[in-house]
Amino acid sequence: MAEHTPEPMDADTGTDVLGPLVACVPVEGAAGTLRATDPATGEEFGAPVGLVDSGQIQDATRAAEEALDAFRAQSPAERAAFLRRVADNIEALGDALVDRAVRESGLPRQRLAGERARTTGQLRMFADVVAQGDALGARVDPALPDRTPQPRPDLRLAHIPVGPVVVFGASNFPLAFSTAGGDTASALAAGCPVIVKGHNAHPGTAALVGRAVADAVRESGLPGGVFSLLFGEGNGIGQELVADPRVKAVAFTGSRSGGLALMRTAAERPEPVPVFAEMSSVNPVFVLPGALAGQGAQDLAGAYVASLTLGAGQFCTNPGLVFVPSTPDGDRFVEAAARLVADATGQTMLTAPIARAFRDGVDALEARPEVALRARGGEGNGPNAPAPALAEVSLTDLTADPRLSEEVFGAAGTVVRYPDAAALPAALEELEGQLTATLHADTGDPADLAAARALLPVLERRAGRVLFGGWPTGVEVTHAMVHGGPFPATSDARGTSVGSLALHRFLRPVSYQDMPDALLPPPLRQDNPWRLNRRVEGTVVPGGDHA
Amino acid sequence: MAEHTPEPMDADTGTDVLGPLVACVPVEGAAGTLRATDPATGEEFGAPVGLVDSGQIQDATRAAEEALDAFRAQSPAERAAFLRRVADNIEALGDALVDRAVRESGLPRQRLAGERARTTGQLRMFADVVAQGDALGARVDPALPDRTPQPRPDLRLAHIPVGPVVVFGASNFPLAFSTAGGDTASALAAGCPVIVKGHNAHPGTAALVGRAVADAVRESGLPGGVFSLLFGEGNGIGQELVADPRVKAVAFTGSRSGGLALMRTAAERPEPVPVFAEMSSVNPVFVLPGALAGQGAQDLAGAYVASLTLGAGQFCTNPGLVFVPSTPDGDRFVEAAARLVADATGQTMLTAPIARAFRDGVDALEARPEVALRARGGEGNGPNAPAPALAEVSLTDLTADPRLSEEVFGAAGTVVRYPDAAALPAALEELEGQLTATLHADTGDPADLAAARALLPVLERRAGRVLFGGWPTGVEVTHAMVHGGPFPATSDARGTSVGSLALHRFLRPVSYQDMPDALLPPPLRQDNPWRLNRRVEGTVVPGGDHA
Repeated sequence: MAEHTPEPMDADTGTDVLGPLVACVPVEGAAGTLRATDPATGEEFGAPVGLVDSGQIQDATRAAEEALDAFRAQSPAERAAFLRRVADNIEALGDALVDRAVRESGLPRQRLAGERARTTGQLRMFADVVAQGDALGARVDPALPDRTPQPRPDLRLAHIPVGPVVVFGASNFPLAFSTAGGDTASALAAGCPVIVKGHNAHPGTAALVGRAVADAVRESGLPGGVFSLLFGEGNGIGQELVADPRVKAVAFTGSRSGGLALMRTAAERPEPVPVFAEMSSVNPVFVLPGALAGQGAQDLAGAYVASLTLGAGQFCTNPGLVFVPSTPDGDRFVEAAARLVADATGQTMLTAPIARAFRDGVDALEARPEVALRARGGEGNGPNAPAPALAEVSLTDLTADPRLSEEVFGAAGTVVRYPDAAALPAALEELEGQLTATLHADTGDPADLAAARALLPVLERRAGRVLFGGWPTGVEVTHAMVHGGPFPATSDARGTSVGSLALHRFLRPVSYQDMPDALLPPPLRQDNPWRLNRRVEGTVVPGGDHA
Repeated sequence: MAEHTPEPMDADTGTDVLGPLVACVPVEGAAGTLRATDPATGEEFGAPVGLVDSGQIQDATRAAEEALDAFRAQSPAERAAFLRRVADNIEALGDALVDRAVRESGLPRQRLAGERARTTGQLRMFADVVAQGDALGARVDPALPDRTPQPRPDLRLAHIPVGPVVVFGASNFPLAFSTAGGDTASALAAGCPVIVKGHNAHPGTAALVGRAVADAVRESGLPGGVFSLLFGEGNGIGQELVADPRVKAVAFTGSRSGGLALMRTAAERPEPVPVFAEMSSVNPVFVLPGALAGQGAQDLAGAYVASLTLGAGQFCTNPGLVFVPSTPDGDRFVEAAARLVADATGQTMLTAPIARAFRDGVDALEARPEVALRARGGEGNGPNAPAPALAEVSLTDLTADPRLSEEVFGAAGTVVRYPDAAALPAALEELEGQLTATLHADTGDPADLAAARALLPVLERRAGRVLFGGWPTGVEVTHAMVHGGPFPATSDARGTSVGSLALHRFLRPVSYQDMPDALLPPPLRQDNPWRLNRRVEGTVVPGGDHA
């Protein structure tokens, strides 16, 4: 710990972790400070957090570039051990982490305890994936010395990390989509040094987690440049990071305007780099008539409002649009949902600007003549707990003005009434790309089944995840998860930011031709020291026991 | 064949294939015509080729969008049969295809016959890959109904095509990188409808191959929108295609300025789309001292000049820079290479503008005071067969002005003299991204081995393919090939345009949550009707015999 620069203690938490980290070393911010805000009260608290200047940004990216070769030379077992150490160190932070996250985010304690488990769980999932080794995608096409008219050389392929990655912490998941969240975990799993731009809505949470990562880097004998955590005011720091020539990829979860700005900067660099931005989605839900029969309308309305209001509606997968038939059953659904929303109370949102944007969004919706506001709940405690809302609009009006389907981030839903399920596929083509699309149908009802079959190809083309009979909030961290989708849900539908496939965003293939064994990287050596499954002439050959 | 619009016969080849194809149907160009040029003589020949207007471009992209769902619904066996049919139909064109390609490109007959074999071979390789099924990347994470605190839903993932793809035919491979070349073959293999922007340097070759593809589309019972072939004057048609909202990805092989212009257009669309542009590369070759000992200098010089002058140097992988030590052995290499280049005669280049750009590039190099022109060969026959050239420059001067390493497309090489192999890694960091990097070393010589080990991590970071002891021209079409690399070699180092991995550029994952079997796509159904290998809870479970 001799390399730690001393920092002011944070009186509120008894921790001394509120500084940025450049190459795992705490530094004083060279560009002033900011303080955390408690969104439940609007009050600032805790020790000042240092903001970095351009020199410190460049120190971080330079150290990341210099750390790349050593980091990527790790064996799968070493990389896995490092990722597990990050998870262990986050758990070792104990209650102080959850305490701080609760105060900074306004989110309930139980949710944040669960989010911590998800964060460490996904680090360990990536550790398992890295240890298993298939992600390296090793391929061997042996030489054909007797081929005519010319012999074929020996060709071998494996994937290497793209280089330093900038990760933007997201406000709505201070743990699972932030400092050591899915983007950081998958980039580290790929072997990419990571520079996190910490979110100013939870600087203490970010700094605590950052310390845990930095400790794991040191304990693993890795160069400090593998990880940095930077804070800055406004958008300048993010733009500067994305424009830095040493940065080779960007991961972002946040607003559409923020994501678009980063995409522009990345595309305009002398060397353009990929941006994986997860931006906005209204996650349409299609309720077919059969699903509303009997108790269906009541039950679905209850589940809908629970999903809509969960966590103050601050999920990327919040069901913003629900398509419901213009039938008496559909009316019952809307009435039940309206009652539940009217009875609901606002929960504290993450930040004052987010709460303000939500109020403005609902007001703008209400002002539209085509929109009927069916219910507004009660304001919650404190300045940033606006009332949930439920609106209703016809499919015709929605199709006529796609702006009616724009995301209002928070617990505001719009029910879209459709005359006939046959009209849905065409209407859906007008909707922008989505993270999720959900279908409720009675597959025993031939009309529903036919309508579902007509809808599904369109849903697949418009979304990254297609659900049946559930609600989109709640994203499992598994091998078969896609948290992605066509623009503007994300900037690149070929990726996912959740699940084990996420690490492939940060890998690229390299082919070796006639390389002697003494110079080949371990995944491709003749003796296969890491016992990888390798695709030989196109067919997978097992590498042996991975125990 | 009733749907064929009659076209004028081409007097030179006796074929009637010179029109564009919109959704597989020959159409008259609505924006005038152009004629093919024989680069060996500079004379125009053959029937006029129709140029399309905006309405025809939109007809093609609309038809592609409409064909997507039917095309992607094919089984692996059906898709494979379609790709094999394309290959069969190209072979059935017989000598007329090679005759036409020879006349339009100036390339030797034997080379074009080989290129045709490569073209049909890569279509059949993609057929095999598609039939095998792993490219769909099917994953299954079964439901965990007893998990606490909440049950886990059933999650299944497979890849679907991104949508219509625009492919730009390349001038330097009128068959293998053009109408039914690697980009088209991999996009079709992925299930993406393709709109080819035919290269104006070989319109007849493009039209003949286009007819073969269109026939395969019809014979396979697919909608015509699966394939279109369009011609246009200038850059307008390409920009219009890339800007079209129905197009979801772009593949391009050509100049850096052309690729950058398409990247800009794609990034500035309301919905940005990925561009896979393969642009420029000087393919550095590093000759370490041990490789030049004894007969080495002489042998390497011979192999170098053969690679440099092959096909008039018109390969993306042409060895533009060779790093040679400032030793007597190095001098012998340069002298031998200079003699061979001086004795070499220019071959006809693909087009007059390409030949002009080559002459200008060599003149500009010669005018630089740091550059010594070591040899200039003889002019070849005809107006477009400029003399090959060999230049020499010091490593210090190259590092001081990176413009000295810019590509001169054609048979012009620069030998870079370095004082000490220890200086190479740092110098290499200044070089732009490359398709290939090549190492010549005596691994039995401890100094060479140490220098090679120091160079390799840098080569991996700067190139898509790293060769040992060979020359970069000649790209094998295999599973372990990467024809890609960091910018500006390509726009996205995570892809390859040659080899079976190329089809992954055009796929994206979709996840299905709790979807009933009756609604799941075949790759993910419980009974696994396509017998795919699937990753279940992260581990591959074989799908059975694929016979």
